[in-house]
Amino acid sequence: MLRERVGELEPWPLAVELERFELPEAESLPQDLIEAVGEANVFTGTEDRVRHATGCGYTDLAKLRGGRLEAAPDAVLLPADVEAVRRVLEICATEGIAVVPYGGGTSVVGGVSPLRGSHGRLISLDLACLRDVEVDRRSLTARLGAGLRGPEAEAALHAEGVVLGHFPQSFEYATIGGFAATRSAGQASSGYGRFDSLVSAVRLIAPAGDLRTLETPHTAAGPALREVVVGSEGTFGVIPDVTVRVRPLPSVRRYEAWIAESFEAGAEVVRTLAQGPGLPDVIRVSDEEETEVSLALSGPRGVTGTLFGGYLGLRRKRGGCLIVVGFEGDEESVARRRALAVRALRRGGAAYLGQGAGRSWERGRYQGPYLRDTLMGMGAMVETLETSHTWSRLHELHAAVTSAIRGALAAQGTPGLAFCHLSHAYADGASLYFTFISRSRRGDEIEQWQAVKRAASEAIVASGGTITHHHAVGRDHAPYMEAEVGETGIEVLRAVKEQLDPAGIMNPGKTIPAN
Amino acid sequence: MLRERVGELEPWPLAVELERFELPEAESLPQDLIEAVGEANVFTGTEDRVRHATGCGYTDLAKLRGGRLEAAPDAVLLPADVEAVRRVLEICATEGIAVVPYGGGTSVVGGVSPLRGSHGRLISLDLACLRDVEVDRRSLTARLGAGLRGPEAEAALHAEGVVLGHFPQSFEYATIGGFAATRSAGQASSGYGRFDSLVSAVRLIAPAGDLRTLETPHTAAGPALREVVVGSEGTFGVIPDVTVRVRPLPSVRRYEAWIAESFEAGAEVVRTLAQGPGLPDVIRVSDEEETEVSLALSGPRGVTGTLFGGYLGLRRKRGGCLIVVGFEGDEESVARRRALAVRALRRGGAAYLGQGAGRSWERGRYQGPYLRDTLMGMGAMVETLETSHTWSRLHELHAAVTSAIRGALAAQGTPGLAFCHLSHAYADGASLYFTFISRSRRGDEIEQWQAVKRAASEAIVASGGTITHHHAVGRDHAPYMEAEVGETGIEVLRAVKEQLDPAGIMNPGKTIPAN
Repeated sequence: MLRERVGELEPWPLAVELERFELPEAESLPQDLIEAVGEANVFTGTEDRVRHATGCGYTDLAKLRGGRLEAAPDAVLLPADVEAVRRVLEICATEGIAVVPYGGGTSVVGGVSPLRGSHGRLISLDLACLRDVEVDRRSLTARLGAGLRGPEAEAALHAEGVVLGHFPQSFEYATIGGFAATRSAGQASSGYGRFDSLVSAVRLIAPAGDLRTLETPHTAAGPALREVVVGSEGTFGVIPDVTVRVRPLPSVRRYEAWIAESFEAGAEVVRTLAQGPGLPDVIRVSDEEETEVSLALSGPRGVTGTLFGGYLGLRRKRGGCLIVVGFEGDEESVARRRALAVRALRRGGAAYLGQGAGRSWERGRYQGPYLRDTLMGMGAMVETLETSHTWSRLHELHAAVTSAIRGALAAQGTPGLAFCHLSHAYADGASLYFTFISRSRRGDEIEQWQAVKRAASEAIVASGGTITHHHAVGRDHAPYMEAEVGETGIEVLRAVKEQLDPAGIMNPGKTIPAN
Repeated sequence: MLRERVGELEPWPLAVELERFELPEAESLPQDLIEAVGEANVFTGTEDRVRHATGCGYTDLAKLRGGRLEAAPDAVLLPADVEAVRRVLEICATEGIAVVPYGGGTSVVGGVSPLRGSHGRLISLDLACLRDVEVDRRSLTARLGAGLRGPEAEAALHAEGVVLGHFPQSFEYATIGGFAATRSAGQASSGYGRFDSLVSAVRLIAPAGDLRTLETPHTAAGPALREVVVGSEGTFGVIPDVTVRVRPLPSVRRYEAWIAESFEAGAEVVRTLAQGPGLPDVIRVSDEEETEVSLALSGPRGVTGTLFGGYLGLRRKRGGCLIVVGFEGDEESVARRRALAVRALRRGGAAYLGQGAGRSWERGRYQGPYLRDTLMGMGAMVETLETSHTWSRLHELHAAVTSAIRGALAAQGTPGLAFCHLSHAYADGASLYFTFISRSRRGDEIEQWQAVKRAASEAIVASGGTITHHHAVGRDHAPYMEAEVGETGIEVLRAVKEQLDPAGIMNPGKTIPAN
């Protein structure tokens, strides 16, 4: 099917092993900076530098396949505690050394790219050692260290009988600090809430000093500085820990799949549920093309299984759109919300595919990135991007972005697939998550990708959607921040940065467009 | 009862009519400023100046009773539209004229006090003419003009079949712009959400330019500037309109009262419900003293009625704490949540008082300020203040603030009442709303109030609570902002202000403590 839609592909192997990469020579660092974390916690080997130079976007992966990086951190520093972080920032501010805070390295928007700004040297500050866990069972909150990866944080919480419920596709590698810094959203965020809505308090270690917000459930004490730190993507300072709202461990988990007659019909079911009294924890609707691709990629024993295959076969003439619905909680809550969902799905003309297909989706929920690696190895360009809009303008946005991507792929001489699912439902709208696949134009991968990304981004901006619902801004979306918050908004962000990071060492070139 | 607890009171009549107040002479304004709004929209009469010089805090009302104000705006300007607002700010920035944005004038923290900062002249900018209403029924959002009062906004929304559900005690007078600028919370905010959580997008007209955030349900595009504008209390610029999430009109409304054996038992019921799957829209628990006072003030046909009186009579030995519970929504949602609430209340040892007492509370929900006027006329000092904390530390905060207020009242030679209710419940905590009543020390009202306010505020800060859950910062809480957000936080707020309002004309002396 892939061949039929994108043409013949040429295998794209990894050029060399990580430790044999071509990298620019590392600048040497001042002795007091090395002493700030201890010599044993300074890493300058090729593999460490390569790993910390790249995230998980298509351009990162394309460069990794090429075996050559035009930039990398001069060293990776691993501070043991908050005091060491403070000391590192102080020295780097004095010496003019750029700092890229590093969590899981899963950014798909160039969030950890080693951009030096006006500085001659750059370090990657790996926060893996910040691992505090402090649960307040009575208030259902937990203070979690920035360096905890998703599974580590959940394991620590499960031991206390609670759950955070934040399951982005990057869950296995991404960290608590990264979730907060990027306003991450998880696959179950319709139910558990986006990460930013789970944060009750936050700390920031900035070059200009520490900032912390109170651990109270809510406050009317002026502008919300918590919301200035959350989403700051390392450009203001380092988030060493956050306090989040947690929940009792669910006793029941139920995932199931349905098929709607069209994307519009499926979206309407989600709108009904999101505007009513009990949304499922997971609810996602694939458009016609994504449904078809899911089926083709999964094969008889894959993601959606034979049940779905058989069903879709019957319906193929009319097309069909896969809906995955998931419920987590106590028996009563799951039963009640499932009853509401079933009613809305049936009224919306959807047909039940069973729990098998739902469980298949659940099993494969973190597999997307691995599948992308496989496809890239076959010679494909594969990338995802996401946005959101109100219900009134969601289909306009869907059509505009799909058409922009297809048009740009064709214009690049590499026609391909562009498909989408709706996820993360709110009373006032939803997010759209697009994937595109085409032949990779070897030797010219970055320009090819840029042309498609630009077309999609411009379509989003023209439709009034947000440039990112949960991938964050990083390097790739910074040029669209003016469309997002206007010139005055940019100036406000710059003023905050200037106050917290007067030397401009924190993650240069990200989030806030350069002057 | 009042006499028994606070001693003999001496009647405190209003000294003069509003139009015969003693005011400082008004400075004259530049002609282009007058032309910016049109001469017919410039008001310099005594009554206009007095009304716009005061909010509804105790010190405001005490000064009004005295018939003399040491400061007032030089004029009240009533811009007809956003363009006129823009022009006014531009001229005031050039001329160095302080601007106090004015909505309903219901601030109880000195939010509209005519503080000039370093400027010689000051205008009150009354936003009453900004009255847009634009409903998106499909997305359940509405763009509402800043000047709409609570009942006006609700009436316009009801005409479209939707409701905002924001019912603070100031509802009758306060405006949409004020709700956004102060992070207001309504009596039904446990269900409908605090005003800040209802805002999906906002605009700001600042001296340095316009700022607006996108009307998308959520975004990960960096720090949330929406949350910088919301809560800015007129210190960054003027909020001309906001886009809020609305809901379908409820078909059922049910209010009822219960009595718990203790404040702790009542709070535990609220915590159970707030951490479960269906909180009532209104849930509030009075402590023992507030319960007793409610009963005494209401009389046989008053707020809580004879039912409650009879019941409390039976229980008096053990004390008892009034709980008001309210449900709004469709029949199914009200029935379901009521079943959860009844179960939790019964398990928590609470006894049902009936819908009569609940309806009485509902009828009297906006009466607090009128009752305060009556008590002040009798010669009492009456004031309220509020905070919030996590469930783990809520009772510690309750005890500390109650004891600080009682101690300060006694130290002032005017022992009195200090009582509290818990309202606005969240999964991680709740707000506490305190009222204190004592004899007013005539001629020395401000100093007496300051001593008590200071003691309460210091107790809040020492307990780690927020200095304000929903009254906002204004003039009165500005000295506690450093405890709230730290020195670095203050510097960030100053940097934002300097960017948006470089001449420092916007609401000087509020929210952000002076350098």
